[in-house]
Amino acid sequence: MQKLVLIRHGESIWNKENRFTGWTDVDLSEEGVRQAHQAGQLLKKHGFTFDIGFTSVLKRSIKTLHFVLEEMDQLWIPVKKSWRLNERFYGALQGLNKAEIVQQYGEEQVHQWRRDPHAHPPAITENDERFPGHYLRYNDLTYRELPLTENLSETMTRALPFWHESIIPALKQNQKVIISAHGNSLRALVQYIENLSDEQVTQLDIPTATPWVYELDDRLNSIRHYYLD
Amino acid sequence: MQKLVLIRHGESIWNKENRFTGWTDVDLSEEGVRQAHQAGQLLKKHGFTFDIGFTSVLKRSIKTLHFVLEEMDQLWIPVKKSWRLNERFYGALQGLNKAEIVQQYGEEQVHQWRRDPHAHPPAITENDERFPGHYLRYNDLTYRELPLTENLSETMTRALPFWHESIIPALKQNQKVIISAHGNSLRALVQYIENLSDEQVTQLDIPTATPWVYELDDRLNSIRHYYLD
Repeated sequence: MQKLVLIRHGESIWNKENRFTGWTDVDLSEEGVRQAHQAGQLLKKHGFTFDIGFTSVLKRSIKTLHFVLEEMDQLWIPVKKSWRLNERFYGALQGLNKAEIVQQYGEEQVHQWRRDPHAHPPAITENDERFPGHYLRYNDLTYRELPLTENLSETMTRALPFWHESIIPALKQNQKVIISAHGNSLRALVQYIENLSDEQVTQLDIPTATPWVYELDDRLNSIRHYYLD
Repeated sequence: MQKLVLIRHGESIWNKENRFTGWTDVDLSEEGVRQAHQAGQLLKKHGFTFDIGFTSVLKRSIKTLHFVLEEMDQLWIPVKKSWRLNERFYGALQGLNKAEIVQQYGEEQVHQWRRDPHAHPPAITENDERFPGHYLRYNDLTYRELPLTENLSETMTRALPFWHESIIPALKQNQKVIISAHGNSLRALVQYIENLSDEQVTQLDIPTATPWVYELDDRLNSIRHYYLD
């Protein structure tokens, strides 16, 4: 039996302001920093150790992992970062306040964008300053990989290659793994691990900075899972 | 022409107390944290960006790199950690106050340990709690790689494989590299890069948290170098 720990980043400044974040590289709030340290203390108290960490290229999840590992005295483990673990790309909604969007588009439309795995938020254009093609950190992406908007299903599609090519090999070598990522990229992994339906995955809400522990058998089949708190 | 930046970690708690640190995993002092942030601001001001970072498995250099990259908004770059970039292993001197050691062994002996590249400080035994074989992070080291004491020459010998196998390949791919490490592991790299004699390298003092910039030609030959301050 081996354990895998998933953790959503601590509260970000925009979580607090209730704005759609997506790939915008918003920092943790003070509360988010505190949450991350607390999660690290909790993991330490329960005797967890890790051999490798995975995270996105967004600072809120990188810093969450850093603070967790700092508390565990495990800053020395290798950490791999990938854009494939980034939050869902929310297109033209990024930066907007959720209340404003509801006012403009209506509650139902917003609910659909957030919960229908096949609904696309309004796309940006390549001239938009939010277009990832303008940023150094996405230089390695092909044209097709640069999003203008994403539905949840597309977030999953681009997250899973990293799961298969980087995370699974570590688990197969019996490495103890922690993944620090985002609400929707974690949903994608959870849907795959637990083989959830679209219906089930959209009902899944992952709280910030709360370690989610999977116990996996030799075939990496999920035996049980629980929140550590 | 390409640039390579070396940086020694910010002041640690034991630097402040004037104790021999070596592989002891001492944290940065408050002043050290401030220095690291300042170094990041300086690099940013001068227009530096990096494609990859290298550091040791000791938190004072890992955190220095983290704070530097945070200030540069470059936390997303890959960072590789290796014990080969660790500080020199100071054997039985680790943890002792420099004044006490001088009192016990005499000024000249201490000077020789610090500056003669072939002088060994007193070795520890494998039963000593400072023996790296007791620590999870050194699990991958062979028996021969676990030090009981190190002279400067041995520090160089174990640091250089990482230079050749990880750092040089990045430079050959024209990646912009930052290395956050320690007084003696950086000396080792500098001796190699500049082809210094033992005499010259022992006279080299590298200040904490001050970016040291190399300009290298196509053959990775050093054209010039300077401190950024």
